[in-house]
Amino acid sequence: MKIVIVGGVAGGMSAATRLRRLMEDAAIIVFEQGPYVSFANCGLPYFVSGEIKQRTQLLVQTPASLQARFNLDVRPNSTVTKILPAQRQLVVQTPTGAHTETYDKLILAPGAKPFMPAITGLAAAENVFSLRSIPDLDQIMAALKQPVQQVVVVGAGFIGLEMAENLRQRGLAVTVVEQAPHVLPPLDEEMAAFVQNELQRHGVKVITGQSVVRFAQQGKQLKLADGRQLATDLTLLAVGIRPNSDLAAAAGIKLGLRGGIIVDENYQTSAANIYAVGDAILVKQQLTGEPALISLASPANRQGRQVADVIAGQPRQNRGSISTAIVRTFSLTAAATGLSERAVRQAKLPFAVVHVSGNDHASYYPGATELTLKLIFEPQTGRIYGAQGVGTNGVDKRIDVLATAIKGQLTIFDLPELELTYAPPFGVAKDPVNMLGYVALNVSEGVSRTVQWHELPAQLQAGKVLLDVRTAAEVQAGHFQQAVHIPLNELRQRLSELDPNQAYIVSCHSGLRSYIAERLLRQNGFQVENLDGAYALYQTVRPQAIVKN
Amino acid sequence: MKIVIVGGVAGGMSAATRLRRLMEDAAIIVFEQGPYVSFANCGLPYFVSGEIKQRTQLLVQTPASLQARFNLDVRPNSTVTKILPAQRQLVVQTPTGAHTETYDKLILAPGAKPFMPAITGLAAAENVFSLRSIPDLDQIMAALKQPVQQVVVVGAGFIGLEMAENLRQRGLAVTVVEQAPHVLPPLDEEMAAFVQNELQRHGVKVITGQSVVRFAQQGKQLKLADGRQLATDLTLLAVGIRPNSDLAAAAGIKLGLRGGIIVDENYQTSAANIYAVGDAILVKQQLTGEPALISLASPANRQGRQVADVIAGQPRQNRGSISTAIVRTFSLTAAATGLSERAVRQAKLPFAVVHVSGNDHASYYPGATELTLKLIFEPQTGRIYGAQGVGTNGVDKRIDVLATAIKGQLTIFDLPELELTYAPPFGVAKDPVNMLGYVALNVSEGVSRTVQWHELPAQLQAGKVLLDVRTAAEVQAGHFQQAVHIPLNELRQRLSELDPNQAYIVSCHSGLRSYIAERLLRQNGFQVENLDGAYALYQTVRPQAIVKN
Repeated sequence: MKIVIVGGVAGGMSAATRLRRLMEDAAIIVFEQGPYVSFANCGLPYFVSGEIKQRTQLLVQTPASLQARFNLDVRPNSTVTKILPAQRQLVVQTPTGAHTETYDKLILAPGAKPFMPAITGLAAAENVFSLRSIPDLDQIMAALKQPVQQVVVVGAGFIGLEMAENLRQRGLAVTVVEQAPHVLPPLDEEMAAFVQNELQRHGVKVITGQSVVRFAQQGKQLKLADGRQLATDLTLLAVGIRPNSDLAAAAGIKLGLRGGIIVDENYQTSAANIYAVGDAILVKQQLTGEPALISLASPANRQGRQVADVIAGQPRQNRGSISTAIVRTFSLTAAATGLSERAVRQAKLPFAVVHVSGNDHASYYPGATELTLKLIFEPQTGRIYGAQGVGTNGVDKRIDVLATAIKGQLTIFDLPELELTYAPPFGVAKDPVNMLGYVALNVSEGVSRTVQWHELPAQLQAGKVLLDVRTAAEVQAGHFQQAVHIPLNELRQRLSELDPNQAYIVSCHSGLRSYIAERLLRQNGFQVENLDGAYALYQTVRPQAIVKN
Repeated sequence: MKIVIVGGVAGGMSAATRLRRLMEDAAIIVFEQGPYVSFANCGLPYFVSGEIKQRTQLLVQTPASLQARFNLDVRPNSTVTKILPAQRQLVVQTPTGAHTETYDKLILAPGAKPFMPAITGLAAAENVFSLRSIPDLDQIMAALKQPVQQVVVVGAGFIGLEMAENLRQRGLAVTVVEQAPHVLPPLDEEMAAFVQNELQRHGVKVITGQSVVRFAQQGKQLKLADGRQLATDLTLLAVGIRPNSDLAAAAGIKLGLRGGIIVDENYQTSAANIYAVGDAILVKQQLTGEPALISLASPANRQGRQVADVIAGQPRQNRGSISTAIVRTFSLTAAATGLSERAVRQAKLPFAVVHVSGNDHASYYPGATELTLKLIFEPQTGRIYGAQGVGTNGVDKRIDVLATAIKGQLTIFDLPELELTYAPPFGVAKDPVNMLGYVALNVSEGVSRTVQWHELPAQLQAGKVLLDVRTAAEVQAGHFQQAVHIPLNELRQRLSELDPNQAYIVSCHSGLRSYIAERLLRQNGFQVENLDGAYALYQTVRPQAIVKN
């Protein structure tokens, strides 16, 4: 059998190597339009700062190593320009000319390309780059050898933030411009606020809710929708990616949402003997059942392996993806899995939200740091829609546990049951993930009634009173503009200071003590709700509403 | 309602605080026989080395703080000496005398006590300690103020190893004596071997398969079963714990396996109105359905909270535990969840084993370290029995993911589907947990046939030949005593050097390249199996069988 693969990075190369392990006698040809195969796509930003020191570290495999180990015929600099499905042929353009290649089975793994918005002046700009490949990186590194002082990163998604960090680590003045109302749009506003603060703490200027409308002066000046002008020596465009599906479309293969290639559960496209995997295909978002473009290395690798099994006669089903992602921004990690609150709201699903703060490991053991987790769930069934986390350490672990829980269709009722590794250097006896379950249970069962951070202003406006139960020292350091203050440990003795006819919202630092206060007050006949996430969350997302001393 | 709780640490105090949140008007009394409640049990070893600096850091709550916040009547130094279930009364001994207390509901959370083996001379030894409480710690710290140079730790379980590390960090000469054939008996031999090597690398002397048969010279000398004598200035006994169930037994409450208190799924003991939680109770080992003693902080805390819910009228079921544990030994982390291979073997369950080595994060990003995972599973159904991990970084995360997978009854077929956080500082696109799934699938589906490390000598004896496919440089640095050597990348060209009538076992460093070789050879008609875990595992567990240069 002769199998041809278009695209030699994650999905394509996983397919090629698995095929060889299953079909020693097959002829396997991999066409890659770029000069490199199997390169470390996700490592590119870290070369910009020098954190990854050697360019060769990014080149995981070469055609020669793949030939020696897997007997693969890997051809870089080879662009497939046309597919003729009826003839099972394709046309390949190489630096020395074009030729025709036949196939028995064809796997399309063309990946995605950076989206280039239609902005006036972009074509004439010489200092605007995107980052997706080694040649992209080489261009940026060459540009950085010129005198560069100020750079603009357009787009504050994962790649945009990684580039902002790495450019800043080079000592450059970095401005990030994001069209969405907050950085890191896959996360919700209050969780992304931690990241925005971290960027600013490290001297990165952040502009949100603004789009770039024009490049002027050959790209040295950039105009925003509100009329602001930014000077820039180098601009990185990281405003999303699009499936590389033109080739498939031209061959009559069916495309769907935003040009993604439609495949069935066995990666079969609408054309016989043609399969597709990776960033270019539409997959089922497992939580909604809707088609989605999920451009991540991990699903691409799995798909590549699975399509090889399918072709080798070992049936596999693409069950879809939930989408899990993580980004480090200076000292802060932010990660998400499943659906965001915004996505759940748009899908009009019934949902509740809880936030939990906790330590990454036992507080009495040196080096403990705080992390904040968010859970979005269906309060009746306990079904988990998604989770997000921010913090210095241990965020990856908690989101991985929650991603596993979602994949396994565990509910909030199962989270307290999870038996996670605990010794003082590694965790806490009630892990933040367990706590997330306990808090969600309390909300689901009506033991606790919460107010979300974004609901607070309207609720206070409507006449509710905020009761802060932190210690005097904590209040002294920073506090809400208007709140009654009774420390939790004095609350039972000072109930007479509260008005039985007044509705209260209680808050502490993270929401744990205020929950105790909520229970105490409700059982004493007060009308009371707990501010979910409490002061710590509120001061992060609405710092202007806080009085700091 | 008047609720009395016996025991004021993990399970007891979780019950007390949850009860208060649910029942503001209940009278809640907590009797604790020791002088402290809610102390950081798991932190005690780290105070010995000074890693935890302040003794007060270990005291999480005090009776006064619990009174102020939770209106709890917490009475330390109060030993309940007798329960009269028919009268709903108990007798309490305090430093000032004995008195009787009534209850409506009684929760027993007495925990466990160190097992003291009947060794000749132990009673006369003045320098033998165990570690379970703050007073135990105080005694050890006082003893360490005397001139102490050499110490012996008897028992290489979790506490024994933590104490060995922390005593060594104080600069003492430490010997560990373990009765089982290897350290860390909850893990299997080859995984525990990594820990044993780490101990020895840090100058800890390790004696396994030996028990202490006598203390002589007031404990200054210790005799082993094989006649060896060890001099010791201080000895720590950490040979396991036993449920503190004498009080319950005297009250006629039914006990089971090794004296554990029998409770139903709602924590109800055999006596009306008496409940029990924590280390003293028998729980269902979820993977076997058998009763088990699982002495861990995390289940104890959950049980305490659940029994409070039961008493408050919110029904909860104890679903049982799978048991997850972790220990740091110097730079190495070792962790386990579910059943060990030994336990699965004893239970006569059908099983297969795979080992996978991988990096904790992308190899091209600075600071990547290797970790080794083991999976024990049922090859037909894919049911996961247990997992173990060792390595410098990221072991806690992988075992947590696998513990979640086991709790969620995910199978090996689900592990490749897990979408875990991936960015170069945090993980790899094919996470070691995904790889564990892929390798288990290969074994389950017959794509790969493996030989386990302990089977190798007999297989070679029977005439099979070991084929090492590592590079010449790797072989040069260290190799099996007898093996044919053909680097993987040359194998396809050098097939003629192999004997078509000879059965081969292939090995590389970790088993990944040798799996590729296995597939290559089998498809070329050779009889071949892959050495699971390969050279890296074998040299760890059987270093004497390896030639090092």
